[in-house]
Amino acid sequence: MELLKERIRRDGIVKEGNVLKVDSFLNHQMDIELLNEIGREFKRLFSHCPVTKILTIEASGIGIACIAAQYFGVPVVFAKKTQSVNIDGEVYSTKIQSFTHKKVYDVIVSKKFLGPEDHVLIIDDFLANGCALEGLTELVASAGAVIEGIGIVIEKGFQQGGDLIRGKGLRLESLAIVDGMDAATGEVIFR
Amino acid sequence: MELLKERIRRDGIVKEGNVLKVDSFLNHQMDIELLNEIGREFKRLFSHCPVTKILTIEASGIGIACIAAQYFGVPVVFAKKTQSVNIDGEVYSTKIQSFTHKKVYDVIVSKKFLGPEDHVLIIDDFLANGCALEGLTELVASAGAVIEGIGIVIEKGFQQGGDLIRGKGLRLESLAIVDGMDAATGEVIFR
Repeated sequence: MELLKERIRRDGIVKEGNVLKVDSFLNHQMDIELLNEIGREFKRLFSHCPVTKILTIEASGIGIACIAAQYFGVPVVFAKKTQSVNIDGEVYSTKIQSFTHKKVYDVIVSKKFLGPEDHVLIIDDFLANGCALEGLTELVASAGAVIEGIGIVIEKGFQQGGDLIRGKGLRLESLAIVDGMDAATGEVIFR
Repeated sequence: MELLKERIRRDGIVKEGNVLKVDSFLNHQMDIELLNEIGREFKRLFSHCPVTKILTIEASGIGIACIAAQYFGVPVVFAKKTQSVNIDGEVYSTKIQSFTHKKVYDVIVSKKFLGPEDHVLIIDDFLANGCALEGLTELVASAGAVIEGIGIVIEKGFQQGGDLIRGKGLRLESLAIVDGMDAATGEVIFR
C-alpha cells in the first residue's frame, strides 16, 4: 500500500535494535484518514471472504479494526490482555509473550462473542515474531471458528512471524513489509 | 441518546454490586453501527467546539474515539496504561486508580502529541468514580492544552464522577446516565 509506505518513510522513526516507531500516526496518535484508507484496502484484499467478525487485540489494534469493520459491516471483538473481573468465567484463554514489554500476558475472549458459526478476519498493527498472532489464531481455533484471513498493517519481514503464519496455510496480507532498517540514516527498505 | 438507552435496556446485563455489563456491544464486542451513531451524537453535542484532537485511554475508549474522530476530522491520541519501552522518555504522566482491576496504573501520553496549541475532546466509554477522567484531565493540563469537552457513553449517575467533573466547570456530556440498577429484575433506570 503505497500511501502507507510513503507515510512510514516520512514519519516513521528508525531506532537501534530494529525498532520502527510509527506512534505519530498508527499506535499512539492515530491518523484517522490513513486508518480509513487502511480499512478500505483490507476490504479490497478480503472482499470475497464471508467475514462475520473482526478480531484484534488490545490496545493499538482496536482503532484499526473498528475503522476497517465499517467496510465489512461486522462487529469487532478485541482480545483482552488480562483477566478482568468484569468478564464472566466463560472465556477462551491463551498466553502471549510480548518482547516489547518483556512479559507474558494472559489473553482472553469471552465465549459469547466467538463461536463455530464465525468467520474471522484478524487485524493487527504489527507482525514481528508472530507471538500475538499465534495467540489470536489459537483463540479462534478454541472457538471452532474459521480464520478467513489476517490483515496486518506493518510486517517486519526480517523476523519470523510472517513465515510462521504463512507456513500454516493462513492467508496473511501485510500492507507494508519492512525488510530492513538503518538507524544511522533512518532509511526503511520495503519488500 | 434514545438508541443507546434502548440498547442498554435490551443487551446490558445488570450484576450484583452495581455492575452494568455492556460487553456485547460496547467494550469487548463492539457494534460499529452503534459506535457510528455515538460518534455522530458527540459531533452534534460538540459541533461548535474547535477540537484539534480527541484524547482517550486504552483500551475500550479507543474504538469509540476513532469512530467519533471521523466526524471531527482530527487525530486520536490514546493514553497508555504502562510505560512502554517503545515510548520515548518525553511523556506526560499521571497515576490512575482502577476499582475494576483493583490497582494503580501509570498513564502516559507522549509530549509530541499533546501541546499548548491543542483543543482536546476527551472521550471514554464509562464514567463512574471519575478516576480515569481526572487522570486524563491532568494529562491535558500538563500539556497546557484546552479541554473543550468530555464525551462519555455511559455515566453511572449514582457515583461521584459526574459531579466531580462538572464541579470543575468542565463541559461533560454523557449519552446515557444510569441512576439505578436492579440486579434481581435486570432493570436499568435512566436519568
